[in-house]
Amino acid sequence: MFESAEIGHVIDKETYEAEVPALRQALLEAQFELQQQKRFPVIILINGIEGAGKGETVKLLNEWMDPRLIEVRTFDQQTDEELARPPAWRYWRMLPAKGRMGIFFGNWYSQMLQDRVHGVFKDPRLDQGINAAERLEKMLCDEGALIFKFWFHLSRKQMRARLKALADDPLHSWRISPLDWQQSQTYDKFVKYGERILRRTSRDYAPWHVIAGMDPRYRSLAVGMILLEGLQGALKRPKIHPDKVSAAPLISSVDQMNLLDSLDLTLNLDKGEYEEQLITEQARLSGLMRDKRMRRHALIAVFEGNDAAGKGGAIRRVAAALDPRQYSIVPIAAPTEEERAHPYMWRFWRHIPARGKFTVFDRSWYGRVLVERIEGFCSAADWLRAYGEINDFEEQIADAGVVLVKFWLAIDKQTQMERFEEREQTPFKRFKITEDDWRNRDKWDDYRTAVGDMVDRTSTEVSPWTLVEANDKRWARVKVLRTINEALEEAFRKSDKKAKKDKR
Amino acid sequence: MFESAEIGHVIDKETYEAEVPALRQALLEAQFELQQQKRFPVIILINGIEGAGKGETVKLLNEWMDPRLIEVRTFDQQTDEELARPPAWRYWRMLPAKGRMGIFFGNWYSQMLQDRVHGVFKDPRLDQGINAAERLEKMLCDEGALIFKFWFHLSRKQMRARLKALADDPLHSWRISPLDWQQSQTYDKFVKYGERILRRTSRDYAPWHVIAGMDPRYRSLAVGMILLEGLQGALKRPKIHPDKVSAAPLISSVDQMNLLDSLDLTLNLDKGEYEEQLITEQARLSGLMRDKRMRRHALIAVFEGNDAAGKGGAIRRVAAALDPRQYSIVPIAAPTEEERAHPYMWRFWRHIPARGKFTVFDRSWYGRVLVERIEGFCSAADWLRAYGEINDFEEQIADAGVVLVKFWLAIDKQTQMERFEEREQTPFKRFKITEDDWRNRDKWDDYRTAVGDMVDRTSTEVSPWTLVEANDKRWARVKVLRTINEALEEAFRKSDKKAKKDKR
Repeated sequence: MFESAEIGHVIDKETYEAEVPALRQALLEAQFELQQQKRFPVIILINGIEGAGKGETVKLLNEWMDPRLIEVRTFDQQTDEELARPPAWRYWRMLPAKGRMGIFFGNWYSQMLQDRVHGVFKDPRLDQGINAAERLEKMLCDEGALIFKFWFHLSRKQMRARLKALADDPLHSWRISPLDWQQSQTYDKFVKYGERILRRTSRDYAPWHVIAGMDPRYRSLAVGMILLEGLQGALKRPKIHPDKVSAAPLISSVDQMNLLDSLDLTLNLDKGEYEEQLITEQARLSGLMRDKRMRRHALIAVFEGNDAAGKGGAIRRVAAALDPRQYSIVPIAAPTEEERAHPYMWRFWRHIPARGKFTVFDRSWYGRVLVERIEGFCSAADWLRAYGEINDFEEQIADAGVVLVKFWLAIDKQTQMERFEEREQTPFKRFKITEDDWRNRDKWDDYRTAVGDMVDRTSTEVSPWTLVEANDKRWARVKVLRTINEALEEAFRKSDKKAKKDKR
Repeated sequence: MFESAEIGHVIDKETYEAEVPALRQALLEAQFELQQQKRFPVIILINGIEGAGKGETVKLLNEWMDPRLIEVRTFDQQTDEELARPPAWRYWRMLPAKGRMGIFFGNWYSQMLQDRVHGVFKDPRLDQGINAAERLEKMLCDEGALIFKFWFHLSRKQMRARLKALADDPLHSWRISPLDWQQSQTYDKFVKYGERILRRTSRDYAPWHVIAGMDPRYRSLAVGMILLEGLQGALKRPKIHPDKVSAAPLISSVDQMNLLDSLDLTLNLDKGEYEEQLITEQARLSGLMRDKRMRRHALIAVFEGNDAAGKGGAIRRVAAALDPRQYSIVPIAAPTEEERAHPYMWRFWRHIPARGKFTVFDRSWYGRVLVERIEGFCSAADWLRAYGEINDFEEQIADAGVVLVKFWLAIDKQTQMERFEEREQTPFKRFKITEDDWRNRDKWDDYRTAVGDMVDRTSTEVSPWTLVEANDKRWARVKVLRTINEALEEAFRKSDKKAKKDKR
C-alpha cells in the first residue's frame, strides 16, 4: 500500500517552477467556481507520518488558494466544551458550508490511530471506530460533500533522517511530536494500523491518496494536482441529485514515475546458479507442503504479469516440486455463462483450497482492475469498488489461515517484442501468440498505470504483492519459488508462536 | 422496532382466501419474468424468533411459486468441507444464479446472533460481524442482487404460548430448539441483539422487514406481498447499470392495521387527578434535574405529533418545572439558508446539550421521514437512508450519556377538526392555524403510514418512541412528564450500577 510512496519520487526545481503558476491559477479558478456554485462543501483530511510535510503542505495550499474560502481546523486535545458532548460533535461544528473548503488537520482517524498504537484498545474497537468513520463519510458524501483523504508517507529511514534534520534545526525543534517517533516500534505500529485504516476506508466515493512526503516539490505538486482534478471533475459533473457529487477517481503519478520503474530488470542467474537454486527451492517447497503444520493452512499463489512474461513457465517449475494431488491450477479466462450469472467474486470463491491444499491462479480476481478496467468491460464505479472488495476478500481468506502470495511478472517492452517474435517463429509456440497480444501491447502504458494503482491499493500487510523481475526467466522462476517458501515458513513460525502461547 | 409486530395483526379467513389466488398468480408471473430476464438473483434471508412461523412460511412460498426456480438453503452446523475454508465460503457456494431465488434459512446473521446471545463474544466482535455482513450485502447489491431480509417476530408472551402449543403437538415436538427459548432471558437477549443487528444493517438497498409471526394468514400474506412488490419493482426498473437493481422501499402494512390504531385515545384524566399528578411529576422532574447524577447526563426531549395535538402545551408544562438556565427549546421549522448549506443533521448537532443540560426539540430530525418524505422535499433514497443515519446519530448521543426521550402526540381526525375550528374562532389562537394545516389534514393517511414506518425503524432499545394518547390534553401532559422522569431515573440507576462496578 505504501510501496509506491517509497520509490523516491522527486520533482526537479525547473519542472516545479514551470508547473506551479498554471496549477495555482487553475486552483484559484476552481475555488471561485466552487464558491459561485455553492453546490457542495470540500473536506480535506490530512493524516500520515510525522515529518512527512503535512503542515508545510497545508500552509502552501493556503498560499496558493484564497485563504478566505478555506478553514483549517486542527483537532488536538478535546476542549471542555467538546468533552461534555458526543465525540463527533467537534467535527460537526467545524464542517465547512457548501462552496467552502475545510482542511481537517488531525481528524477522526488521528485519534483512533494513536489509541491503537498506544494499546488503549485492540482491533475490534479499532474496527468499530473505522466503521463509525465510514458511516460518517458515507453520509457526508450522500449529502453532497467532496472528500479528499491524504496520507503523507515516509519510509522508516526517511522519517529518521527527517526527524534528525528537524531536531537539529532550532526553528523546527519544537515539532518533535509527543509520540516517540524515534522508536522504530512506533513507526511500525503506526504504519501497520494506518494501513488497516486505509484498506478499510478507501472507498470509490472517498478514496485515500498516499503522498510520498520526502520531496517537498513532489508532495506539493501531487496534492495540488489531485485537488485540482477532483474539484474540476465535481464542478463539471451534472446535477443528477440536487447536490450529489462524488470524489474523483485515481490520478496517475505526478512525476510519471511508477513502481515498475524501480525494478532492476537486469537481474539474472547463470545456468549453473539457476539449476542449483531451482532444485534447492523445489525441495524446500516439497518439504514445506508435507510439513504437518501445513494442515492448519492452505496456500494460494496468484500469477499476473505482462504477456509473454513467463507465467506458464514459472507455474510449471512450482508444480514440478509437488504431488499432483496437493495442488490444482485454475486458469482464469473470460467468464463462462454460469460465472457471468453470479457476482464477480463467485468464480474465485469456488476454487478456494481446503486446508492442506494449494491452488495456483493463472490470472485472477485482479482481472477487474487490469484488463476489465483497461478494456472498459466494467464501469469505473465497478473497478473502483473492486479494490475494497478484493482487500476484504483477501483479509477473509488470510484470517482463515490461507497463505496468499501474489506475483506480478514484469518484463520490458523490448523483451516482450523479442519473445513475441520468437513465438511466431517456433511452430509449437505459435498458438501462444494472438492478435490480442499485439493489441494489448499498444496499451502498455495503460497497464503500467493500472498495475501501479493495483499495487498501491491492494498490497497490504495481510497479502503483499511481489514484483518479479522477469526479463531473465531463470531469475524469475527462482524468485517465485523462494517467495512462496518464505511466505510458508513465515506462516508456520506464526502458527508455532500462537500454539506455544495457547499452551501456556 | 418490534412494536408494530406486537399489536396483533390478524387476517380473517375470508380476506385471506380472497387475496391469495391473485397473489399466487402474480408471484408466479414475476418469477417467470425474473427467469426470462436473467438480470439478477434474488436472495431471501429468514431470521427471527423461534416459533414465529419461519419454516411454515418458507414451505408455503415453495407451494405458491415454482419450486424449481427456488433454492432453499439451511445453514446449520458447518460441515467438514466448510470448516476447512473461510467462513463466507459456505454462502458463496450457495448463491443463486441470475434469474433464480435463494432462500437462506439460517444465514450470516444467525451465527453471530447465537454467539452473542450465548456470550461467546461481546459487542465489539458482534459489530465486526455486523460490518462484514454489511460489506457482503453491499457488494451483492452492487453486483445486481435483490435482497429481502425478513425478521419473524413474536412478543415474549406469544412465543411462550406458541412453544407450548408446539410441545404439546406430537408432530411438532422435535422442533423445540437447542437454544433454551423457555428461559425468558434468552428471549430478551435475542431480541436485544437482534435489534442491534436490524438497526445497523437495515439499508436503503436491503432493508429489513419485520413480520408479525403470530397469525399464519397475516404473515403469509405479508411476506408474499413484500416479495411481489419488491420483485415487480426490480423487474420494471430500467437497466441503468447493466445489472444494478436495488430493493423495494417499504410497503405499508398488509392488513392496514397501524401501530397508531392500537392507542386507546379515550384515556383521560379529570381536572382533580390532573392537577395533582401534574404537580407531582413537575416536582419530580425539578428534583431530578438538580440531582448531582445529572452532571453525567444530558437530556433531550423530541416532540412530534399531529397538528393541534398539543405539543406546545405539553412543552410548556415541562418547562414550567425548571429553571430557564437549565433548558433550551429549539423549534424546528424550514431550514435557514445557513442550515441548507450543511448536511441535513448539522442543524441538530449544533443544539446538542452539554452534560447537565436539557434541550427540547419542537419537531426534530424526524422531519426528513415525515414532512420531507410526504411532501417530496427529498428523494426516496434520501429518506430511506435517513432511518439508518438517525439510528446512528441517536446511538452516538446515547453513548455519550444523553438521555433521549421521543414523543409522538396522537389525536384522531375528529379531535383535530374540533381544535382547528376552535382556533379559527378564538382571536388569540387564530395565528396558530394556517392553510398548511388544512393541507396537511388531507394527507392524514400518508402521515399515518410514515409514523408507522418511523416507529418501526427508529424505536430502538437505545431510544424508544413513546406514543402519547393526546385526545385528552391532561392525560398527554402528565404522560409526557412521567415518561421523562422515568427515563432519567432509569439512566441514574444504570450510572449508579456502573459506578459501583467500577469501584469494585
